[in-house]
Amino acid sequence: MKKTVPVKPFSESACNAAEARVVLAGAPLDATASFRSGTRMAPSAVREISWHLEDASLLDGRSILDAAFTDAGDLHLTGDLEHQLEEIEAFAASVADRGQKPLLLGGEHLITYPAVRALAAKHENLCVVVFDAHTDLGDAYRDMRLSHASVMKLAYELLGSGRIFMLGTRSGAPEDRSLLGGEIFHDPGGLPDEVLRRLDGRPVYVSVDVDVLDPSVAPGVSTPELLGWSYRMLHDALRALSRVRVVGADVVEICPPYDPSGVTALIGAGLARTLIHLMDES
Amino acid sequence: MKKTVPVKPFSESACNAAEARVVLAGAPLDATASFRSGTRMAPSAVREISWHLEDASLLDGRSILDAAFTDAGDLHLTGDLEHQLEEIEAFAASVADRGQKPLLLGGEHLITYPAVRALAAKHENLCVVVFDAHTDLGDAYRDMRLSHASVMKLAYELLGSGRIFMLGTRSGAPEDRSLLGGEIFHDPGGLPDEVLRRLDGRPVYVSVDVDVLDPSVAPGVSTPELLGWSYRMLHDALRALSRVRVVGADVVEICPPYDPSGVTALIGAGLARTLIHLMDES
Amino acid sequence: MKKTVPVKPFSESACNAAEARVVLAGAPLDATASFRSGTRMAPSAVREISWHLEDASLLDGRSILDAAFTDAGDLHLTGDLEHQLEEIEAFAASVADRGQKPLLLGGEHLITYPAVRALAAKHENLCVVVFDAHTDLGDAYRDMRLSHASVMKLAYELLGSGRIFMLGTRSGAPEDRSLLGGEIFHDPGGLPDEVLRRLDGRPVYVSVDVDVLDPSVAPGVSTPELLGWSYRMLHDALRALSRVRVVGADVVEICPPYDPSGVTALIGAGLARTLIHLMDES
Amino acid sequence: MKKTVPVKPFSESACNAAEARVVLAGAPLDATASFRSGTRMAPSAVREISWHLEDASLLDGRSILDAAFTDAGDLHLTGDLEHQLEEIEAFAASVADRGQKPLLLGGEHLITYPAVRALAAKHENLCVVVFDAHTDLGDAYRDMRLSHASVMKLAYELLGSGRIFMLGTRSGAPEDRSLLGGEIFHDPGGLPDEVLRRLDGRPVYVSVDVDVLDPSVAPGVSTPELLGWSYRMLHDALRALSRVRVVGADVVEICPPYDPSGVTALIGAGLARTLIHLMDES
Amino acid sequence: MKKTVPVKPFSESACNAAEARVVLAGAPLDATASFRSGTRMAPSAVREISWHLEDASLLDGRSILDAAFTDAGDLHLTGDLEHQLEEIEAFAASVADRGQKPLLLGGEHLITYPAVRALAAKHENLCVVVFDAHTDLGDAYRDMRLSHASVMKLAYELLGSGRIFMLGTRSGAPEDRSLLGGEIFHDPGGLPDEVLRRLDGRPVYVSVDVDVLDPSVAPGVSTPELLGWSYRMLHDALRALSRVRVVGADVVEICPPYDPSGVTALIGAGLARTLIHLMDES
Amino acid sequence: MKKTVPVKPFSESACNAAEARVVLAGAPLDATASFRSGTRMAPSAVREISWHLEDASLLDGRSILDAAFTDAGDLHLTGDLEHQLEEIEAFAASVADRGQKPLLLGGEHLITYPAVRALAAKHENLCVVVFDAHTDLGDAYRDMRLSHASVMKLAYELLGSGRIFMLGTRSGAPEDRSLLGGEIFHDPGGLPDEVLRRLDGRPVYVSVDVDVLDPSVAPGVSTPELLGWSYRMLHDALRALSRVRVVGADVVEICPPYDPSGVTALIGAGLARTLIHLMDES
Repeated sequence: MKKTVPVKPFSESACNAAEARVVLAGAPLDATASFRSGTRMAPSAVREISWHLEDASLLDGRSILDAAFTDAGDLHLTGDLEHQLEEIEAFAASVADRGQKPLLLGGEHLITYPAVRALAAKHENLCVVVFDAHTDLGDAYRDMRLSHASVMKLAYELLGSGRIFMLGTRSGAPEDRSLLGGEIFHDPGGLPDEVLRRLDGRPVYVSVDVDVLDPSVAPGVSTPELLGWSYRMLHDALRALSRVRVVGADVVEICPPYDPSGVTALIGAGLARTLIHLMDES
Repeated sequence: MKKTVPVKPFSESACNAAEARVVLAGAPLDATASFRSGTRMAPSAVREISWHLEDASLLDGRSILDAAFTDAGDLHLTGDLEHQLEEIEAFAASVADRGQKPLLLGGEHLITYPAVRALAAKHENLCVVVFDAHTDLGDAYRDMRLSHASVMKLAYELLGSGRIFMLGTRSGAPEDRSLLGGEIFHDPGGLPDEVLRRLDGRPVYVSVDVDVLDPSVAPGVSTPELLGWSYRMLHDALRALSRVRVVGADVVEICPPYDPSGVTALIGAGLARTLIHLMDES
Repeated sequence: MKKTVPVKPFSESACNAAEARVVLAGAPLDATASFRSGTRMAPSAVREISWHLEDASLLDGRSILDAAFTDAGDLHLTGDLEHQLEEIEAFAASVADRGQKPLLLGGEHLITYPAVRALAAKHENLCVVVFDAHTDLGDAYRDMRLSHASVMKLAYELLGSGRIFMLGTRSGAPEDRSLLGGEIFHDPGGLPDEVLRRLDGRPVYVSVDVDVLDPSVAPGVSTPELLGWSYRMLHDALRALSRVRVVGADVVEICPPYDPSGVTALIGAGLARTLIHLMDES
Repeated sequence: MKKTVPVKPFSESACNAAEARVVLAGAPLDATASFRSGTRMAPSAVREISWHLEDASLLDGRSILDAAFTDAGDLHLTGDLEHQLEEIEAFAASVADRGQKPLLLGGEHLITYPAVRALAAKHENLCVVVFDAHTDLGDAYRDMRLSHASVMKLAYELLGSGRIFMLGTRSGAPEDRSLLGGEIFHDPGGLPDEVLRRLDGRPVYVSVDVDVLDPSVAPGVSTPELLGWSYRMLHDALRALSRVRVVGADVVEICPPYDPSGVTALIGAGLARTLIHLMDES
Repeated sequence: MKKTVPVKPFSESACNAAEARVVLAGAPLDATASFRSGTRMAPSAVREISWHLEDASLLDGRSILDAAFTDAGDLHLTGDLEHQLEEIEAFAASVADRGQKPLLLGGEHLITYPAVRALAAKHENLCVVVFDAHTDLGDAYRDMRLSHASVMKLAYELLGSGRIFMLGTRSGAPEDRSLLGGEIFHDPGGLPDEVLRRLDGRPVYVSVDVDVLDPSVAPGVSTPELLGWSYRMLHDALRALSRVRVVGADVVEICPPYDPSGVTALIGAGLARTLIHLMDES
Repeated sequence: MKKTVPVKPFSESACNAAEARVVLAGAPLDATASFRSGTRMAPSAVREISWHLEDASLLDGRSILDAAFTDAGDLHLTGDLEHQLEEIEAFAASVADRGQKPLLLGGEHLITYPAVRALAAKHENLCVVVFDAHTDLGDAYRDMRLSHASVMKLAYELLGSGRIFMLGTRSGAPEDRSLLGGEIFHDPGGLPDEVLRRLDGRPVYVSVDVDVLDPSVAPGVSTPELLGWSYRMLHDALRALSRVRVVGADVVEICPPYDPSGVTALIGAGLARTLIHLMDES
C-alpha cells in the first residue's frame, strides 16, 4: 500500500489493520470546486469529532468497537490532477486486492471516479449508488473534463447504462434530462425498493455527497442546495442498503471552513460509521 | 431611474434591462433594528451566492435563464431616514411607471413601507401578503413611528382594513390582537385557500421577512423567533401565489454577520428566484 | 441566599424578588466536559438574547410579564469541584426553603446533581424527568465519579429505582442497558402518557440537556448527537408536564463558542421561559 | 436620571453610585454607520470582558477597586434619531448636574455630539480631544447632517475655532483640509506637548474612536483604516492627559460582530479603565 | 479582451475604461494550495471593502478618484489548470497590447507566472520584484511543476539570472540557497537601495504575496508564516518603487475564510490602491 | 510510559522515538480557567498547523528534520483533578527517567505544576523561567488551591526562593508584590542578562503562557491581557536561553475557539519548534 500521511485515526478501533474488512483513508483532493473550496480540511475534522460520538447507539445496538475496520491515514496527494487521481485509484485497488473494502473520506466528489475505476476493474458489473443534490454530469463540452461537477459523467462513460443510481438529486443542467430516468436511474425523493431489487446480487459502490442533505442539516458543504433530505432520511436509505453487497464507499464535499459548529463534520462521522457497519456486515 | 451603486448582479440574466418584466434592486436600509443590525450586508451576500445555484431545477423544470429580469444595482441610501425611504419609494414608482415590477432585496423590513406606498399609488386595491414571525404593528405610542417593528402598522394605516394578510406570524404585543383576525388577516400556519380566494383578481405585493422560517432553517436574521416554518412550507406558499397577480415583492431581514455558513443568504437567493418566476409569469 | 455575581437579568420581570415563585440563577460550571468546553458562557448568552424575544406569544397567549419570577444572578463558583457543587446545592436549598422554585441555567449537566440533592431533601419521593441524548450513567469504574457523563448515575444512586425518566436518550454504553427500561424509565422518542401517569401527584425536577435536540436545531452544545428531537417536540413535551407538579428545573450544556448565530442560546431562552411558566403555574 | 436598561456592570466597583466621581453608561446607538453596523453590541461585550481583567496592574500600580465610579446601565434609546440624541444629552447633563463626570460606551461616534452639547452647556470653553482615523467632517452638503461621519463637523459648529484637537487622523475628504491645522488642530502622529499646553486649565472632553488604532490591533471596528496607532501609543497619550482636567469621555465604534476573538472589546475595557482613572484623578 | 464575469468594481473610478492606464481584474485561481484553500473568494472580498476606504488620504494627499484605472471584472477560469493559466496570460497580454498595465487580484500565487509570461513577451529585460514569506522555488523534482509553491522557479526558468528580487522571504527549502543571493536577489528585511539601482530604467512586475506580512497583521492568508513585516514596512517599500517603471502587478494569497474581521481584505484593498497609484504615475 | 491517545504527530520527524532527546506530548487539561475555556483543543490545533510550516528557516538555517524529537501523543486525562495532575507528573517523570526531556502542549497553565514536580525530583536546584502576562500567585486564601491562577504559587511553595523567574508579567494582585522582585524574579520587559547569569549551569524548566504576547499577536488565549510582547521579543528571549541547560518545557493557554484565523495555533507551533531546538541542542 502507498505511504500515507499520519493522522489521528477515525474513532477507536479494536481491530488490527490486517484483519480489517474495511480500510478507511482520507483523500483530501480540493482542486476543482466551482463555489467554495476547503474540502481538504474534512478528513481531519471528521476524524477529530468521531472520537466524541459514543461507541454504542441505543437505537440500533451497534458499537463501533465491534466493527472490523482500520484507518490507513491520508493519501499523500501531490503533483498534477491526473497524478493525484492515480494515487487514489492505486490505493483503492491495493485495498481491494487484499480482499478489503475501501472507505474514502473526501475531499471533493471527483475522488469517486478513481475509486470506481479501481473497483470496476475488480468487480464485474459494478453499480454506483450516489446520494447527491447535483447531477454532476458536466463534461468537456462545458469545459469540465475532470471536475467535481463531471464526476458522474465520467463514471457513466466508464460503466455504461443502467449502472448508476442517483438519489436526492434536485439540480442539474437541462441537457442532463436525456440521461436521467433512462440510462441513469434518478429519484429526487428517497430510495425506492426498485433500486434495491435492481442492485440485488451485484457489487455496489456507495458515494455520499453530503449536499444531498438540506442546508439546514448540513451547512458546511461546498455547494449547498435548498430543498434537501433530512439526516434520518439518508440514514434510513443507507441502512436499507444492508440488503445489497457494498464493496466500497465514500463521503465527500464536507467543507469545514463553512461549518463553525462542526455539525457537518459530525454528520460525516455518523455517515462513515454507518458505511463501516454496512461494509463490515455485507 | 435613480442612479444606483454598481454591484455584482443577481444570478446570470439572459434578458436586457429594457425588456425585463422584473427589476431587482438592493435596498440596504439598516437603521432601526431592535436587536441585531447587519441587514445592509444582505444584498451583496445574496447576489454572491446566487451565482452558485444551478440555473435549472430538476424539481420544477424552471431555469433562471428563461426569466425576464434585470438587476438595477443597490439604491444609494443617504441622509436622514425619511429621505432614504423617499429614495426607495421613488425607485419602486419609477419601475412601476415603466410597466415593470420591483423586487427589493433588503435591508430591514421598513423598506416594505415605501415600496407599498409607491405601488398603492399605481394599483387600486393593492393587497399585501406578508410572511413574518412578528406582527410589526408597533406604533408611535410605543415610541416607534418609522421602524422595522411598525412597518405593518404603517401599511395598515395606508391601505386600511382587509388588505393585509399575515402568514406565519407567531409573536406580537397583546394589543395587536384587536386587529389580527379582523382587519388584518392572520394565520400562524400555512397559506389557506381562503386567502387565495380573497386575493383573486387583485394586485398583490408580497413581503417575505425571512424570520418567518425557523431559526434552525434561517439562523442569520435580525430577530430569530422559535417555532417557525420550514423552507419547503414557505416555498410551497409562494408557489401557490402563482394563481394571483403579484406586482411587487421584497425579501428582508437577512443578517449576514450571523450567517457564517451562508445558508440564510442561500435561502434569500432561492426566495428571490421564486419571486422572480412568480412575477415574471403572473 | 449566597451572594451572586451581578448580571443583566433574564428577560424583563414585572415581579419583585420576594414575590417570585421561580428564582432563576446561572450556574456556569464548566469543568468536566469530555469534548467541547465553553458552557460557562451560556448564562450570559441566554440572558442577552432573552431580551429580544417578544414578551407575548400569539400561539399560546402567554406573556413573560405575567410570570412571577426573578433572576438572582450567577452563582460565584470557585475552589475545587466539590466546593462548587456545594454552592449550587446551598443555593437550591435556600430557594426551596423560602417556598420558591429554582431554575438553573448551566453550565454543564453535572449541576443537576446538587440541585436534585437539595430538592430531594425537601420533597419526599422526588422524581427527575431528564431530556438528554446521552444516558450519563458513567461511574467511578469508568474513571468518572463527578462528571457531566455520570450525573444521572449519581442521581440514580441518590433517588433509587423508578424515580428517573429519561427521554430522547439515544446514546450510551452497552452496560447502561441493565438499568434502562427497568430501574430507570427510558424512551428515545417523545413523552408517553405512561410517564405523566406515573408522575401524577409527585414532585418533579425537570432537567433539559439541550443536546436532546438534533444538531441541526441546536448546534451549539458540548456533545452534539445525531438523530435528535425537533424543538417543537421538546416544547410540546414540556407543555405536557403542566399536568404534574414541577418543583425545580435546569437547562444545561449550551456551549456558546460553537453557536455563532445564537440559535442555541435562543433555544435556551425559549426553554427557560417555558419552564418559568410551567413552574409558575403548577 | 433617566431610567436605564439593567446590565451586568462594568468591572467590580467598590464605590456606591452616589459617591462616584465617574458615571459610566452604555449608549448603544447604531443607526448611521456607512460600512458595518453592530456597534450596539459593544457595551455588553466590553462589560463582559471587563470582569476578566485583573483588578490591578503591575505596570502602574493602579487598581480599579480604588476608583470612584459606578455603572448606570444602558440608555434606553427608542424613537427617531433626534429623540435618541436628546436622551443621550439629557443623561450627560444630569450626570454633570450632580457634579459627576459621564463616560459613555458607544455605540457609534455620533453619540459624542449630544454629550458635548450637554457638557458645553456646563463648562465654558470646553475643548474636545478626539482620537480617530477619520476627520468625521461630513455635513449636509454631503447628505450627512446627523451621522457618525459628521460628528466632528457638528461639534465644530457648536464650539467654534480652536476647540477641537484631532489626533491619529489619517483619512478624510480633500475639502477637510481647509479646517485641519487651522481652526481644528490635527496631528496624525501622537499627542504633542503643544496640545497639552493649549488645554491647560480648560475643561476637556475626550472621545476615543477605536479605529484610531491599527486594524491589526483593533480589527472589530465599524470602519477600519490602515496605518493606525499601536495600543501603547494611545494608552500613553491618554495617560499624558492626566495633566489636564477631563470632564467627560467616550469610547466608540467597537463593532463586536467583527471581533470574534474579543480583542477589540478587551481594548474597549482597557480604555474605559484608563479613562475612569483619568477622570477620577483629575 | 476576453469576456469576464461581472462584479462590483474595485472602488469608485472617475475614469472610463478606454482611458485607463491600469486595468484591474480578478484571477480567482484556487487549485494548488498546499495548506488552506479559499483564495478564490479574495477578489470579491477585496472589492467589497475597497468601497469603504475613504477616497483620499491625509497622509499623502492622494485620492483614488484621480487615478486612471478601470476594473474589468473577474476572469472566467474553467477547464484544466493549463487552460486557466492560458486565460490569465491572454488577459495580461491583451491589456499590455493596448498600452495599459494589468493589476491582478488573486487567487493563488501561481497566477503570477502567466502574467509574467505575457509581460516578458512585451517588455525586454523584464524584472520581477516579489514580496513573499516563501521562496516558492519548488519544482518537478518535488512533485510540484505548476503550483503556488513553484511559481518563482517557473519565473526564474523563464527570465533567467539577475531578474528576480525576493523581499521579505524567510522560509524555504535548504536547496533554495544555491539560487538565493546569487542568481536570485534575496533580502528578508526591507527593500535596499541596491535593488532600486539595479531596477533603474528596466520594466518591473511587482508581485505581492500578502503572507510577506506578519500573521498578526494579515491573518487571512493561505500559508501564514511567523516573523513577517508590518504593513507600513510593505507600504513604504512599494512607495519606494515609484522611482522605477512598473508595468504590471498582482496581489495574491488572501484567503477570506480565515479572515473573519476582514482586515486582510482591507490590506488587499490598500495594496491595490497603492499599486494603482504606482502604475498610474510611473 | 503511560498509554496515550493517538494523534496526528507534531511536524514531520526523521527521528525514531527511542533516539529522541525531546518527547512532546499533549496535556489537554481544561478544568480551572476563570474566563474562557477551550484550551483542550490546543494540542490538535497546534499539531495540525505545524505541518504547514516549512521545514527550514532562511533566517537561522535550522530545519525541524534535523531535530531529535518524537511525539508521544496526548495524555489520557480522566477522573478528578488530582488524578489528572498525577498522570502528567508520571509522564514527565518517565520521560526524564529515560534521559529524555519533556515538552508539554497544554491545555491550561496548571499542567506546569506536575511537570515541575517531576523534574524537580530528578534535577537538584531546578529553576523555572516563566513567560506570562499574569503572576498566577493565587492561593487557597483566594479559593484557588489547584488552578491556572495559582500555578506559580504552587511552584514557589515547591521550589522556594530564588528559583522562579517571571518575564513579561504585567498583571497580578496587589499582595503579589511581597514576593515579586525578591523571592521571585520579575521583569515585565525582556529577558535581562542577569537572569542568564543566575541560571548558568542550573537545570531550567521553561514555561510559555502564550498570553505573555500582546492580544494583537496572540488573540486566541484564555485570558488575553493588553500591553504584551511581540512574537519576535519572545522568540529572541527563547533563543537567548540556548546558553542555559533546558531540561523540560511547556506551551500553554492557547484557546482555539477564540482563534478563528489559526494565528495563535501557528504561534504555538513556532514556539514548540523553538523549544525543541533549544532542548535538543542544550
